[in-house]
Amino acid sequence: MKIGILGGGQLARMMAASGIPLGMEFVFVDPAEDACAAAYGRLLTADWAQAPTLDGLRDCDRITCDFENVPAEVLDALGEVAPVRPGPDAFAAAQDRLTEKRLFQRLDIPVPPFAEVSSRADLLAAIDTIGLPAVLKTRRFGYDGKGQAVLRSREDLEPAWRDLGGHDLILEGWINFHHECAITAVRGSDGAIVCYPLSWTVHDGGILRLALAPAPVAREMESRARELVERLLSELEYIGCLTLELFATDQGLVANEFAPRVHNSAHWTIDGSITSQFENHLRAVCNLPLGDTTMRGQALMLNWIGQMPSMAEFLGIAGLRWHDYGKRARPGRKVGHATLVAEDRSGIEAGVAAIVDQVDAQTASLLKGEMMPLG
Amino acid sequence: MKIGILGGGQLARMMAASGIPLGMEFVFVDPAEDACAAAYGRLLTADWAQAPTLDGLRDCDRITCDFENVPAEVLDALGEVAPVRPGPDAFAAAQDRLTEKRLFQRLDIPVPPFAEVSSRADLLAAIDTIGLPAVLKTRRFGYDGKGQAVLRSREDLEPAWRDLGGHDLILEGWINFHHECAITAVRGSDGAIVCYPLSWTVHDGGILRLALAPAPVAREMESRARELVERLLSELEYIGCLTLELFATDQGLVANEFAPRVHNSAHWTIDGSITSQFENHLRAVCNLPLGDTTMRGQALMLNWIGQMPSMAEFLGIAGLRWHDYGKRARPGRKVGHATLVAEDRSGIEAGVAAIVDQVDAQTASLLKGEMMPLG
Repeated sequence: MKIGILGGGQLARMMAASGIPLGMEFVFVDPAEDACAAAYGRLLTADWAQAPTLDGLRDCDRITCDFENVPAEVLDALGEVAPVRPGPDAFAAAQDRLTEKRLFQRLDIPVPPFAEVSSRADLLAAIDTIGLPAVLKTRRFGYDGKGQAVLRSREDLEPAWRDLGGHDLILEGWINFHHECAITAVRGSDGAIVCYPLSWTVHDGGILRLALAPAPVAREMESRARELVERLLSELEYIGCLTLELFATDQGLVANEFAPRVHNSAHWTIDGSITSQFENHLRAVCNLPLGDTTMRGQALMLNWIGQMPSMAEFLGIAGLRWHDYGKRARPGRKVGHATLVAEDRSGIEAGVAAIVDQVDAQTASLLKGEMMPLG
Repeated sequence: MKIGILGGGQLARMMAASGIPLGMEFVFVDPAEDACAAAYGRLLTADWAQAPTLDGLRDCDRITCDFENVPAEVLDALGEVAPVRPGPDAFAAAQDRLTEKRLFQRLDIPVPPFAEVSSRADLLAAIDTIGLPAVLKTRRFGYDGKGQAVLRSREDLEPAWRDLGGHDLILEGWINFHHECAITAVRGSDGAIVCYPLSWTVHDGGILRLALAPAPVAREMESRARELVERLLSELEYIGCLTLELFATDQGLVANEFAPRVHNSAHWTIDGSITSQFENHLRAVCNLPLGDTTMRGQALMLNWIGQMPSMAEFLGIAGLRWHDYGKRARPGRKVGHATLVAEDRSGIEAGVAAIVDQVDAQTASLLKGEMMPLG
């Protein structure tokens, strides 16, 4: 099987790493000449929407993506070359926060109160209904906290309106959550669905920093998350891996957004599960049976942001697994991650105690403040 | 770190797969244009002993090997280019069965009775001392059961003598073993040693077919194996991964041979341990701290010989991990392996029950006859 992947970043890289042992070959399409997935296959340095892309992918058996903002017309054109999985419908829903929220609503998946905002008048009306604080977001192309602004008072309206471009926005009510979490599930072409355990996630400045699995929550919350993500996968007749991000609130789980691809919150599945999200995505895309998602003990993932820390200091920590994406350092860029695996919670705590001595104050504080007291 | 590997087969391939996430890059030297490691780095199609090899490796930080029959003069020449680990001494000992047996003897590691055989007269004298049955072996270049002949009666002598070339041979006494086993250990440049659990191994026609870990043996036998392999590593001031193959007999463990490299009997460490033998070999070679060798449950590895079976039928088996080496089919060739991982023995048994329905009669018989009743 030859797989074409739009995007050659770390998600494509980890997909390929998991697919080569299954006898798969990979071609990546990325405008960047130093796209890090190239270590695992052929890199086609091209724009996704251009003709060379289509030509370069003609010998592929399947096409998939490592990011969700692929224009619909590109996906349609690629469909002539090879089956694109997941298909355009899932992308269409995930690319527009308004469509996404309406889909959730239609499926009885709880969402924050929201309203379409296309004019200043819309915004004022939405605030009257939803109240403050609230979050004003662009409908499209938001990621890692970009394309959104928190409105705490009426003074925040005008700057936010200007910053976000003043059209195609959505206002969402503020959610008082105990914690953010995410659930990753995979649906095969035969409709079979497998789920990974719910992860607890910690963001900082809009960027995911930590994920802990299984999330230390009641069994009912875990089953509820599974039920919600399965509903979404079935409705979309989805093929591949999808992550649903959720807020855990007093009123139960509330959906934030979904990503129609492998997801940072489930990177721990490489070291913490029998079959990783990356391999299961490829299995689904290639009509192969889905793999065992059983966790082996517990796992805590930390993202390395900006630049890789010195590896040697970490490799001596029991149960710590290292993932350098081979990317150049750049502020705010995800350049790698580490996953701590342990049989039980006390093993994770021992590992965290060793990690906090090695990381910057900000990461140490996230580890100590956000993650540990909640166990 | 850039690592040069002599040999571009599956061992080099799996080393590179484990090293890329640690930020390492790889160059492989192999005379075969389709060497399967090439999926993970740059392939230098060259003979190991030739000048282009040295030139092609000049930008490497370390050099290591995926096979043990590298001539000493090649290793010496490579030493001028970059540190070669493990070093020439371990290769010298492993390349000659007589030197190897004498090393074991010097270290009080039990060996079968043996004698140097350089003439027909030596052979007759050796048989008088050692008795029959016995095994006549070439001192050098034996692998996968090649270069040896079992002598059951005096009639077997002349054909074996002719087949094996009639010089540089060794006669070894027949060992009545219950089972064959192997222990893999890794020594760092600081002298630290980590061991994997003892594996039970099953050969057929001289080729490894199955490995089960941990070997279901008494704790004393496990500690004895560790003690023996640690003695060997320390004596050789070895850096890297080494496997000691042993016979389990009524009189305890008897050493068969050692391999100064990553080894087929420990392929299960990819899926069954926190840190694989491949990654730990590279960590040792690169002066990095050695990784956690803790097993996660139990593991059973099956080699795919000759050609890969149809993957889809196996991927549905819970806990089964797939490793296609991307090699062309050829009789007797190791083309891939599968590892079954499970929390406990009953999980392994359930997996085996599913596997035997899919494999050829010979493999099914090995699985049922050799492995399972002994649990």
